[in-house]
Parts: sequence; structure tokens; C-alpha cells
Amino acid sequence: MPGNSFGHIFKITTFGESHGKSIGVTIDGCPPMLDLTEEIVQELMDRRKPGGSKASTGRKEKDKANIVSGVFEGKTTGTPIMIFIENKDAKSRDYSEIKDIFRPGHGDITYQKKYGIRDYRGGGRSSGRETAGRVAAGSVAMQILKSENIEIISYTKEFAGIKAVQFNLNDISKNPFLCPDMEAFKLMDKEVVSAIKAGDSVGGVVEVIVKNVPSGLGEPVFDKLDADIAKAVMSIGAVKGVEIGNGFEATKLRGSQNNDEITPDGFTSNNAGGILAGISNGDDIIVRIAVKPIPSILIEQATVDIDNNQMKISTKGRHDISPIPRINVVCEAMISIVIADHILRQRTIS
Amino acid sequence: MPGNSFGHIFKITTFGESHGKSIGVTIDGCPPMLDLTEEIVQELMDRRKPGGSKASTGRKEKDKANIVSGVFEGKTTGTPIMIFIENKDAKSRDYSEIKDIFRPGHGDITYQKKYGIRDYRGGGRSSGRETAGRVAAGSVAMQILKSENIEIISYTKEFAGIKAVQFNLNDISKNPFLCPDMEAFKLMDKEVVSAIKAGDSVGGVVEVIVKNVPSGLGEPVFDKLDADIAKAVMSIGAVKGVEIGNGFEATKLRGSQNNDEITPDGFTSNNAGGILAGISNGDDIIVRIAVKPIPSILIEQATVDIDNNQMKISTKGRHDISPIPRINVVCEAMISIVIADHILRQRTIS
Amino acid sequence: MPGNSFGHIFKITTFGESHGKSIGVTIDGCPPMLDLTEEIVQELMDRRKPGGSKASTGRKEKDKANIVSGVFEGKTTGTPIMIFIENKDAKSRDYSEIKDIFRPGHGDITYQKKYGIRDYRGGGRSSGRETAGRVAAGSVAMQILKSENIEIISYTKEFAGIKAVQFNLNDISKNPFLCPDMEAFKLMDKEVVSAIKAGDSVGGVVEVIVKNVPSGLGEPVFDKLDADIAKAVMSIGAVKGVEIGNGFEATKLRGSQNNDEITPDGFTSNNAGGILAGISNGDDIIVRIAVKPIPSILIEQATVDIDNNQMKISTKGRHDISPIPRINVVCEAMISIVIADHILRQRTIS
Amino acid sequence: MPGNSFGHIFKITTFGESHGKSIGVTIDGCPPMLDLTEEIVQELMDRRKPGGSKASTGRKEKDKANIVSGVFEGKTTGTPIMIFIENKDAKSRDYSEIKDIFRPGHGDITYQKKYGIRDYRGGGRSSGRETAGRVAAGSVAMQILKSENIEIISYTKEFAGIKAVQFNLNDISKNPFLCPDMEAFKLMDKEVVSAIKAGDSVGGVVEVIVKNVPSGLGEPVFDKLDADIAKAVMSIGAVKGVEIGNGFEATKLRGSQNNDEITPDGFTSNNAGGILAGISNGDDIIVRIAVKPIPSILIEQATVDIDNNQMKISTKGRHDISPIPRINVVCEAMISIVIADHILRQRTIS
Repeated sequence: MPGNSFGHIFKITTFGESHGKSIGVTIDGCPPMLDLTEEIVQELMDRRKPGGSKASTGRKEKDKANIVSGVFEGKTTGTPIMIFIENKDAKSRDYSEIKDIFRPGHGDITYQKKYGIRDYRGGGRSSGRETAGRVAAGSVAMQILKSENIEIISYTKEFAGIKAVQFNLNDISKNPFLCPDMEAFKLMDKEVVSAIKAGDSVGGVVEVIVKNVPSGLGEPVFDKLDADIAKAVMSIGAVKGVEIGNGFEATKLRGSQNNDEITPDGFTSNNAGGILAGISNGDDIIVRIAVKPIPSILIEQATVDIDNNQMKISTKGRHDISPIPRINVVCEAMISIVIADHILRQRTIS
Repeated sequence: MPGNSFGHIFKITTFGESHGKSIGVTIDGCPPMLDLTEEIVQELMDRRKPGGSKASTGRKEKDKANIVSGVFEGKTTGTPIMIFIENKDAKSRDYSEIKDIFRPGHGDITYQKKYGIRDYRGGGRSSGRETAGRVAAGSVAMQILKSENIEIISYTKEFAGIKAVQFNLNDISKNPFLCPDMEAFKLMDKEVVSAIKAGDSVGGVVEVIVKNVPSGLGEPVFDKLDADIAKAVMSIGAVKGVEIGNGFEATKLRGSQNNDEITPDGFTSNNAGGILAGISNGDDIIVRIAVKPIPSILIEQATVDIDNNQMKISTKGRHDISPIPRINVVCEAMISIVIADHILRQRTIS
Repeated sequence: MPGNSFGHIFKITTFGESHGKSIGVTIDGCPPMLDLTEEIVQELMDRRKPGGSKASTGRKEKDKANIVSGVFEGKTTGTPIMIFIENKDAKSRDYSEIKDIFRPGHGDITYQKKYGIRDYRGGGRSSGRETAGRVAAGSVAMQILKSENIEIISYTKEFAGIKAVQFNLNDISKNPFLCPDMEAFKLMDKEVVSAIKAGDSVGGVVEVIVKNVPSGLGEPVFDKLDADIAKAVMSIGAVKGVEIGNGFEATKLRGSQNNDEITPDGFTSNNAGGILAGISNGDDIIVRIAVKPIPSILIEQATVDIDNNQMKISTKGRHDISPIPRINVVCEAMISIVIADHILRQRTIS
Repeated sequence: MPGNSFGHIFKITTFGESHGKSIGVTIDGCPPMLDLTEEIVQELMDRRKPGGSKASTGRKEKDKANIVSGVFEGKTTGTPIMIFIENKDAKSRDYSEIKDIFRPGHGDITYQKKYGIRDYRGGGRSSGRETAGRVAAGSVAMQILKSENIEIISYTKEFAGIKAVQFNLNDISKNPFLCPDMEAFKLMDKEVVSAIKAGDSVGGVVEVIVKNVPSGLGEPVFDKLDADIAKAVMSIGAVKGVEIGNGFEATKLRGSQNNDEITPDGFTSNNAGGILAGISNGDDIIVRIAVKPIPSILIEQATVDIDNNQMKISTKGRHDISPIPRINVVCEAMISIVIADHILRQRTIS
């Protein structure tokens, strides 16, 4: 059954496999008269590309975004915006040896059980490459956020077991892990180097903050803003947990500590993470996302083949050591899509 | 815009406010020929009722489930099943003093900002009472799970800051907090007594385990099984976080530790919580849910009224000290609805 | 699979069988602050009731609309509006003899084949009684239309094979068939009397006109305004055809005759029926609906029972001789729901 | 708001403008393991191409279907199938003169009113070219129908005011208008020649028959099979009416004439057109579709420009004289999509 669409008004549908001709997205429901060019999309796409980071893959795809429809003379027209990215760098020969074997931690086994067939090349549809379409769509969503003066930032809160303690906004772009704490970064870097040497991988926690969100976004009772955000980020491969505001920490507090008191100038604290009863309260929206270590590792592990024979496997080839930091912009994109969708939803009752 | 429906094939739509005539749910898409009676629904409803627990409200509603349609001679017919519960015990006079004032931690302020009007009586639509419809629908979903031999259990993993260390299935029903560790329960009880004395409230963590789920459930890429579960539980009031499998713990592990190796007899561990690439892998599905302390407390807190004047408020009247343990069955209900929905979704491709 | 919801923003979900406890509707997505009372709903409900017309049933249900939720102090609140109508007059004993036999022209045989079970009492879910929920929802939609100054009228264009030639708006309410031509009415009446004597039934054509619809409503390409209207009316039992503007007549014209020329003051004709490329053009929306004769007749006809044995059946009991004129207000209600939905949809891009 | 998707399980989303880079469709929800190649898609696409018919355009697009995703080694994989067609033959210079003027009978004026912007080149999104994506999707739907042994045929029932009286299946492919009556074809041809000489255009009626549809397809109460078919065909540009079975003719009959009597071997007639109470009854599904004359004509007509100045316009350039016969395969495609969708929907309850 269909599961490749997301959003209700600002609605995206993605397509494509890692090693097919191309991957992409169709955005339906975007309002007309927004500025949109391939350059605007490309700017966000470039933040997802493998870069100088030790954590990132050597795969050198030029993820060039092509706008096919829905834009006329630099403006959106209200009709579907299709954006695709060619899969130029795909080498099918790299993957022939995993044709009949299931990589631990990957979707190989579950896709096979679900469908009885799968495009095994590079993980097919379950590849992280699928997120390119999400980022392209996110760039369009961000044009809506921008028009409402909403800002979104993301950074690495924890990486390879090391927490960021300081928060210096300017530091985020100064290190390849997008960590707002240069001291923590140095410790993270040591851990990453150690993991690389061991042929292993690492995970971490991404935090996204959305500023200037008007109060009133979110729909009772199932399409709460936090419920939609939770689904949005949990739908990204490698994500295993999500928190809003102080999240799991709230469970240890008493109500008197956890409640955000209210003054004529606003809330005195933001444990709620900007959302009360599923509706934005005007404060910053705060989301934390648990990212597991990438399952592809050089270390040999036990698995089975398609006939359930015991096998050993170690993943060769080019691979990121962690979904972080490339996943960070994907989290931003997905949350931007949720916010854009709810901005448009709110218009229906005003 | 509509936000009161959940599910794609097994689709529920809830209605009702805390102090309106009644609350309830319509279930569309339930297959015919399943056993269904008011007694079956009532059995689950009774697990949500305020009970012997110190943590629960004195409000003595008899939450009697009435099946209005979609059932004929004890069997579902395939047509919409409407179930409602009367609001017999509602006392509107209890709430007149909060008509123009926003309770901290509640949706009063956000509903007012969103709609410009709200049924302030008992929290209206944002009341925890809304979950009665979810539980009624959950009881129907569980008939589908039962027909597939799937089992679901929930318990309190952490309460008032105290973690359960042991896991004894039989202990769950032996204490009012539904904790699987009687030693931990005693410590929890002390903390709850202390919080009650202080006029305060507490939170905790609920864990849900689903057993015997067939592999293959879940849809790439946005309607992943874990993404739908995350939305399902995050849409319950008071929930601030959700984890699948080892969740946030996974972020500290290396890939070699976090990957579940595979043998001809199954996985050697279950860090994934039964879901790989958004699709069930046949292992137990494990979900942990962060529940904040109930915001209604006797301790006075700062807030504003509808004209933004600074006020003080303390919540009088009958209130639970925590959403736990009543929320536990709501979590089970919502996850059952997700599983039932994906069971039916999977039929479309087989 | 779910099929009991209609609309995208103004979204209704109906429930109930002819002889169950009650039937009704939940409306999700209605904006807040609209006037709504049970009297407003009742006014439209009363137009559906069996009346002085020879064509209508003797069944004397008092279709009293009860608003359960979503309204507070006479205003909508933005939360789901549930409205139900009790089935007071249902007599199950009337229907025991058709338990295992399929009435020609009815859904008995197809429901049985689809579900393997059916509530045979009074047609169950396939009864015309199901439309009561549609009319209740239509009354709410009409409050949105009213707020935009949009008017909707319906009348009987053709009945029992007799066409209305004149159009006198005032005549519509002067005859029980809601015909705008008193001369035609007299001929219709003769035919109806003849059909009643023969124990037979008749059909006809309903026309609905919507005035003051702003231009711009309707979504490319599948959710065209006329496509949604076609679905809306074709989903009413007994409807077998629908036309927009000059409809089938257009197929005989040349382009030069059928095109509506445009002047600075508007279109010079309205062959398009107010819709161009699926989007309203500001002119009157004109819809014609083909209504088949009611299948329940006293004349004996061939059929089979549940075991496929050849049988004869004639329908005893109280029955309308035609869906017209009671179906007319149902057509109005459904088209109002479509227009209301598209008014709210249009807000998302403006 | 989104309106470019159709279907619930077999769900298609189209994109593209007449003169953009390409047009296409993404199909989500197609089951895995169906045979699918570009040749299979192309075969249906070729039936939509402008051909030897006098009625068709000289525009010589090579509508080559490209499958981008969702197919692996000649089989569907269960993931989204994206198919696109390049717009090779588009000449933007042909359309510069209609940039600021609204062609009568076209969507120019309504798109402009709705969005405040439009891609005026070749009609942009409102062009008949948009149906290429529908036909591509229809070819995939037909693979599902084929797997269930369902057959679908279409033909021209009436053209340029001339009705087909005979029905000879073999004649359909023997004349360019796809008419099953060679005598009628000759009269049609005369009318078409006359219209071409006059610089005018013509319309007609298409009939589609679906054979071997199992009973039980269609969902009460809004997603009736006939309601979904009505929407499907009414969403095709140029369609102004739709009938099921004997349609408007039924309104003139008495119940005793219109009811299809039932015998152990099936129905004795098929006035219902294969659908009872919105659910297929196992008989042939019969749909008739009213197609208006193409609005682009050489004859000069009155219109206004974007500033509401009175203008005259006659459409130069290459144009079909009628949507028929090219629209016939589009009707088949849309109805196939509805049937495929309901086949998959029915699986959720069996």
C-alpha cells in the first residue's frame, strides 16, 4: 500500500532507488508565487553532500537538482513541483556479491520478506540516498517558512558517545561534525578516528530548533504538531528515538518543575519544547533525534543468505562512518515540511 | 483542518469533549466477521478506569461503551463501527473559575490562540478523557491482532524517577502502578506519597512489547512501522518522547555492538526493537514512551488570563497524580491500531 | 477498506444502519466561530422528511438531529462535530422475510457477496436512511456557503418521464414534487398516480444550481470541482448519471456553439455550467442528476435466495414511490459539502 | 491544495506542464512481482498518439515512456513506479501571442483567477497532454486487471452528432474514430470533414465496458464503485457528463422495467451497468462519457485579455478537431485505475 507520500496540504511523494536512473520527489499543494529556482534547491542539497568530514562517504555523486514542473519564470505556479536527481555515480558491480545475502542492521531481510523481491543494488529503496528527495522537498518547504520569518537550525548534540556541553552557534559550521562545542568536537574526533581504525561505525543525537513559529499550529488530536514531527523524523532511516522539549528528562520531574509558567511576556521556561496539547505555543520548537550507528561496517558479522544458510559478511566499499552529519539536514528538511504543512493547514480555519 | 482521524485501512475518527454529551469513535475499514460485543470493548475500557491506584482520579465515571453500528448478531459487518461513551459524571460548575485563565502545562492557551474559542469545561477536547475513544477503537484492533495470534503487553518501566530493574510479568497486575518489579514499586510508592503530600504530580516511562508480529509489516518510506508507532504514541496527551528498541542508547554504541546478527534461527539480539528499515523483522516490537507529570497540581503557579493579565493558579478538584498507569492501556490501544492497520495494508500486496 | 468519509478539509464520516440504534455523522475540519444550533440542522433535516407528497413513504420517523460535540454556546469550536439521529420508528419484524432473499435493484446481493454478512433489516447500511447523516453535514456546510454569500437551490427537472418546460422559482415549493413548472407538475402527478395504482415506481432528474460561487475553486487535475461534484452525487443511492452545464447535449454541438464567449462583464452563455478546466469561473454551477425509480415495488419479480434458489418477490410495507423529491435535498447537501470543502482548500494557497 | 493524486491503494500522482521539460506520473501501492517493461507501457501510450485520424493533431511528439523506478529485472518491486515522457516537440514560440489572453472554453481564465500566475505555454498544466501520465499509469493498472482476467474495451458511441447503431467489435479498429458501426462512421466522417472546413470542432460520446469484474468491488458509502468511476472520468478535461448502465434513460422507466431480475444463472438484464448500491454485481460494467467539442477553433470568438479588455481570438496552430478518439484510451486508463484500486481495496477485508 502507498507509503511514499508525506504531508496533507504541502504533500510530497518520493520515488527512486539507490542505483536506478534517478531519484526524486513530487510536491503537490505548494502555494503559487513563491520564489523557486534550481539554485535555491541546490543550496540545501549541497548541505547533504559527502564533504570534508571523516564521517562521510567517498562516493562523489554530484547531486544536481533538476526542477521539471510547477515553476514558471522563477515562481511556483501552484501545480506539482517535480524535482529529480540523476544517479550518475552508481556502480552496480559493487553490489553483486550481496545479491543473495542480508546485511545485518539493514532492510535487506525485511524488504525480501515483505515483497519477495528487492532491488539489492546499494540497498535499493532503503538506501540513505532516498533522503535526497526529502531534502529537495525541504528546500521548497523552507521557502514557505522564510515567507513567515521562521528559522530552523540543526546541530550535533552528541556524537560517538560524546556530548556537546557548550552551545556556540558559530562553532557549528567550524567543524565537520556540526557540533556547537569545539572542545566536545575534539573528543568526538578522537572517537571517530578510533572507530574508523576498528572498521566500525558510530551514532549520535541531532537537535533541531525552530524559531519564530506562530502559536496555533497543530491539529487535535492525532495530527498534533509533535506527533507529526515524531513521525517525520522517525521515518528517516537510522532514527531510533525522538524527544520534544525536555523529553525523557520530563519523566523524572514533578509537575511543579516541568510546567512552564506563563507571564504576560511569555513562558518562563521551555520544557514543553514549544508545543502544548499538540499545538505550537509560540516558543522555540525543540526536537532531539536518536541516530543509530550506520550498520555497514568492515568488521565481520554473522548473517544468513536468502536460503537461510549461515554466512559471514563484512561491508566493503565506500560508506559513511555515521549518518551524522549528513542526516542533520534531512532532519531539518523533514521538520520544515511538517511546519510548512501546518502553516497551510492553519489557513483553512482562519 | 481535519486531524481527528488515524490509520489508513483500519481508520478511526474520534469526537467529543470532556463535558459534552458524550465522547466516542467511528472505526471505518474493519473487516467483517470478527467477533465483537460491548463486553469485549468494555473489558479494555475497564483497564482505563480510575482504580485503586493512589495515582488515579476520584472521578467516578462509569465509562460504559455503547456500540451503535457496524455489528450484527455479534459479528462485525464491514460497515463503520460507532462506539460512544456518555459523560455522566461531568460537573460543569467545577470549571467556571478557569473559564478565562490558562492552566500552565495544559492546552488552554494554545487552543485559545488556535481557534479563538474553546470549550473550557474540563479541558474540552484536550482532556485526557478523549482517550476513551482510542481505547474503544483499540479493543476492536485487538480482535484483529488476536486473529493473527499477536500479543501486546504494557507496563511501567519507570515512575516518579524510579526505574524497574527486575522484569516479572506476573508482578504487573499485582501493584497499582503496573510495574513488573515489586521492589521498585515500593520505592515508586514512596515517591508518589511524597508528591501527593506536596500537592505535586509525577511522570514516568511506559514500555509496550508486541509479540508474534509477522515480518513484513510497515511501508517504505514515510509510513514505516516505527514512524507510525511514533506518531501514534506522541499523539497521546502528556507524551514527550518515544524510542524503538534500544532507542537513545543506540546512539552511544558502535555499529558492531548495535547490529543484531542473524542466524538461521533468528536474530541474536533485538537492539532494533523488531523493526528494520521501517519493516517488522519478526522479533518483538519494543516501544518506550516518555510521559510527563500531569500539569494539574495544587501548588500555585504563575499564569495569565485571556487578557494577558498576570495571575496565579492552583488546580483544585479531582485529578490523577500522573497519566500513568491509566495511560498504559491507551499506549497499547494506539499501538494495536497501528499494527492492525499495517496487517490490513500488507494484504493489499499479497 | 474505509469508504465512509468524504471531503478533504471539510471532511465527513457517516455511520449507522437503517435499523440500528442511530445513524449519524462526524464532521472534522469545520472552521470555528460559525453559528450552529440543532435548530439550524433540523431545518434542513425537515426538508428530507417524508411529507405530503404522494411519492413519499408513510414511515413517520421524527428525524431529530442531536449535536453531541464541536459546538459551544451556539458556535462551532473547530473540533469534530458529531450529529446523530435516533432510529425510533424501526420495526425489525417487517424485514424478517427478506433475511435470506435478495431484492432486485437493491444492494442485498452485492453486500452479501462483498462481506459474507449483512444487516438485512431495512437494507442496513445501503438504506436511503443513510442519507440523513449527509443532510445533517450539509446543513453545516451551508453555514460556510452562507458566510460567503453563496446560494444553492434544487428542483425536479423531470419526473416519471415528464419534463419541466417552464422555470418558475416560486412554483418549486407549491407542489410536492418540487417542480418549477405547475403545468408539468399536473402531468407528473397523473403518471405518479398511475404508477402507484400499478404498484410500480418512478424516477426523474434533479437539477441543482449554485449561485455566487467565487471563481478559482477546484483543484487540478483529479480533484476538479466537477469531478468532486460527480463523485458526490453519484455516491447517493439511486443516482445513475450526472451532467455539468449542458452535459450530454454538448456532445452534439460544435466548438463554436459550445464555447462560452467572454466579455468584460462575464460570459455570454453558460454551457460550461460554471466550471472550466475543473475550476469555477464565477458563473452559476449547474448540475443535473439522473435518479432511477425506487427498486422496491409491489409487482412481483424474479430473484434468488442466499442459496441461489429461484424465488419471486414483491416488496410489501411502506415505501416511497420515488427517491424524488426526498433525494433533492440530499443532492443539495452533497454539493454544498463539495463547495465548502473547496472554499477551505482554496484558502491554503491564498 | 493537493489535487494531483488519484486512488487509495493503487495511487497515482501526476506532474508536468505541456511545454515543461517532461510530464509523468508516480504510482505508489502497486503490488510487487507484476510483469512490467517500458514496452508494455509504450503499447498503451501508442494508442493515445495522434494518428491517421482526421480528428487528430499534427503534433508529432514521440511519447516515449521511461520507467525510472519501482521495476527490477522486468518485475514490479512494490516501491513507487515513476514513469516520465519528455516534451520534445514543444515549441514555446507558438504560444507567445496568447500569453495575456484567455481562450474561450479553456482553463486560461480560471487558472489565472485561481493562482494569479500560469504557465500559458500550450495550456500548461490544463493541457490535454497531462493525460499522458494517466495513460502510463493505466498501463500498470491493466497489468493488475489482466492478472484477474478482467477485460476493458472502449469505443466511440456517438460522434459529431451521429450515433452508432450497430455494434461490431471488429469494426472498432477498422476506422480512425474507433466506432463499432462502419455505416455510422461514414456519416461521422462527413460531419467531421464539414467541421474541419468550417474551422470548427466536434464532440461525442465514449462508451467503456469492463468484463469479468468480480462481484464485491466498491466501498459503501462514498467510495462506491460508480462514484469513483464518475470522478475518474469527470476529471478528464473535456468531459461534461457520465452515466452508469442505462443512466439518464433509467429516469424515464418504471421500477418494474428498470430492475434487473435475478436468476440462478445471473441477471436477466443489465440496466444497472454492473453496479448495485455502489458494489459490482459480476455483470459487465458499462460507462458512457460525454465529451465536449475541443474549444480550440479557427473561427474567431469574443474574449478578454488579462486586463479585461474585449478581444477577438481564433486558435491557430496544430489542434485535434475533437478529444475523441484520443480521449478513449484515457477513459479506459482512468477506469482501469479505479478497478485496480478497488481490487486491492477488497483484499483488505478478505
